[in-house]
Amino acid sequence: MPYENSAGTTFDRMLVTYRVTTSDLQTARIVASDIANEQTVECPPACIPEEILENAIVGRVETVKQLDIPGKFHIEISYHPHVTGFSVPQVLNVLFGNISLKNNVRIIDLNLGESLYSHFLGPRYGISGLREICGAHTRPLACTALKPLGSSVESLAHKAYQFALGGIDIIKDDHGLADQSFHPFAQRVKKCAEAIALSKSKTLYMPMISGRFDQIEEQIKCVIDNGLKGILIAPMLVGFDTVRYISQTYPLVILGHPSWTGGNFASPDHGLDPAVLLGTLFRLVGADASIFPNSGGRFPFTQQECSDIADALRNPKGAWKPSFPSPAGGMQLSNVTGLVEQFGPDTLLLLGGSLMEQPQGITAATQEFMQALTQYE
Amino acid sequence: MPYENSAGTTFDRMLVTYRVTTSDLQTARIVASDIANEQTVECPPACIPEEILENAIVGRVETVKQLDIPGKFHIEISYHPHVTGFSVPQVLNVLFGNISLKNNVRIIDLNLGESLYSHFLGPRYGISGLREICGAHTRPLACTALKPLGSSVESLAHKAYQFALGGIDIIKDDHGLADQSFHPFAQRVKKCAEAIALSKSKTLYMPMISGRFDQIEEQIKCVIDNGLKGILIAPMLVGFDTVRYISQTYPLVILGHPSWTGGNFASPDHGLDPAVLLGTLFRLVGADASIFPNSGGRFPFTQQECSDIADALRNPKGAWKPSFPSPAGGMQLSNVTGLVEQFGPDTLLLLGGSLMEQPQGITAATQEFMQALTQYE
Repeated sequence: MPYENSAGTTFDRMLVTYRVTTSDLQTARIVASDIANEQTVECPPACIPEEILENAIVGRVETVKQLDIPGKFHIEISYHPHVTGFSVPQVLNVLFGNISLKNNVRIIDLNLGESLYSHFLGPRYGISGLREICGAHTRPLACTALKPLGSSVESLAHKAYQFALGGIDIIKDDHGLADQSFHPFAQRVKKCAEAIALSKSKTLYMPMISGRFDQIEEQIKCVIDNGLKGILIAPMLVGFDTVRYISQTYPLVILGHPSWTGGNFASPDHGLDPAVLLGTLFRLVGADASIFPNSGGRFPFTQQECSDIADALRNPKGAWKPSFPSPAGGMQLSNVTGLVEQFGPDTLLLLGGSLMEQPQGITAATQEFMQALTQYE
Repeated sequence: MPYENSAGTTFDRMLVTYRVTTSDLQTARIVASDIANEQTVECPPACIPEEILENAIVGRVETVKQLDIPGKFHIEISYHPHVTGFSVPQVLNVLFGNISLKNNVRIIDLNLGESLYSHFLGPRYGISGLREICGAHTRPLACTALKPLGSSVESLAHKAYQFALGGIDIIKDDHGLADQSFHPFAQRVKKCAEAIALSKSKTLYMPMISGRFDQIEEQIKCVIDNGLKGILIAPMLVGFDTVRYISQTYPLVILGHPSWTGGNFASPDHGLDPAVLLGTLFRLVGADASIFPNSGGRFPFTQQECSDIADALRNPKGAWKPSFPSPAGGMQLSNVTGLVEQFGPDTLLLLGGSLMEQPQGITAATQEFMQALTQYE
């Protein structure tokens, strides 16, 4: 661990930007010191040994700035990368461990710094790798969801066949498809993979991985044994580092699902911005695409929040590959052009239920979806 | 899966109570149906096959009630236990997966129902088991935290020795102590365990487990190899089912830490009540004690929220053992009597930094803490 005195460079430190709501600048400075302490040494200042101060282990307040909005402040705090132990759980802990339990602190930006960007590998495939697998080099990619939960395996496999006949790029399980009695994981994966193979299409099938801690790797092996190339997984349900481990260990495309993340967005004044959680942190653990609820669908995300997620997924961060944003949540066939205008062609479009309710049937609706994308080829 | 028609008993279903904020009763009924759909089939109603309806797989709205507060409604929805696949990640998914991404829906109560209460074993030791290990059968138990992060292993071990000399029941790592270069996990655990053994006290040492997915079991084995009987672990950092797995697999006391949970409490209208998350769900995955930020400390929890957490940890739920509430977060020696009045003697009191800053030194301050508890023997 290199020695850093108080005049040391901040280049290598993890930099977190908070928007804090409080009365005045002086209080904002106190809040800043509190956060810096709480997220590292969590200890009365008088009890911090000299060695810790010398090594800059306590978070360091870099800036405290009043915003134009009364009562709102931007605070930047940097953290020594060694505080994270270079592990995902401890990155999360430093970022939003104890302060998650406070109020009026919102994380609006995260720059992990060079040593964390190079320690964590980010997405294995990213946009270019997934395009290569799908054989689609310029147009947006198209994804749909296998549902509903509670169907028989045969019925799901038949739907997968119909979607594949329509030429969809990716079929993912609905995120509620686990290892239930009505569609056991291993049976479902096998039958759906076989049904798609029958269609002779290039469609990829990505099963939902939400098994128990001691079952996850068995499920991953089942996916690989069935010749599949990717999975759907929700970091909040199985643990962020579980996703990082799978991404680094197995040659699988990772579709990240936002299940259970939303509590962190509900208060405008506290939590994390969706771009930090569904963008930077999902990419950190290897998401080649990150699904999020687009504005205008069934969920309350704003257009700005969605664009920010897309930026966090695609903007340069160390040597990490850019990932696909995947706007979803009630998108319709009629939205396709608008979605591509908003997000650009490096987007994984996800139409779920809406392809199932078209009067022309699943295969024809899927063909229409794929047809709408040919203009971007 | 037993057949259930629409007149079927609800006894065995998981029952979730939501407080919803909306304009009127009619809209509340629509919201209720939306939640029931979103958390299970997530599919346009017209596309739900008859077999799924027949088997009552879609969440079932049981009651929608207007509260005395304008715009607030209680909604109860029951879920077929098979929807959860009897796995923790999917329980979380059904509970707060997609609706976490919405707004104005707060989960205020959770009754898992008989079949889930018996499938999941809950705490291995609970209050009586941990009392047995500590040899303290009536009084509150006493816990402290080893800190600050960034200290040398020798300095942490020396502090552990001082706390143990003072006769504390449990020393836990500060939750930021991971596997960092300045206090590597294996070295720290060994040296601190040795230091405590030297003191001849019965003090238990519970190291923080926040290792990588592929490192967790190695850390657990290290804890056991050093003769230790418990761990500190944060379900949100390593995954809820990781905790369930450890609790069921290894004979270790589980201290649950609330790191990263707080985003879900920040909006009064959306998220989960602390009692559901830090009470019921922590107990579900095996927490023998659950640490939470008490009112009046450094965090904004109310007294009512803290009492509700304690109730959720100790009230009968199937055959689960009751767990210790562990109020913390800036508690002082002077609070001890008040804390016992509020929470009763079946409480694990956690004083961290405050024992370190007493002028009489750590051992004397700890003795004073233990002395204050003898009146409850």
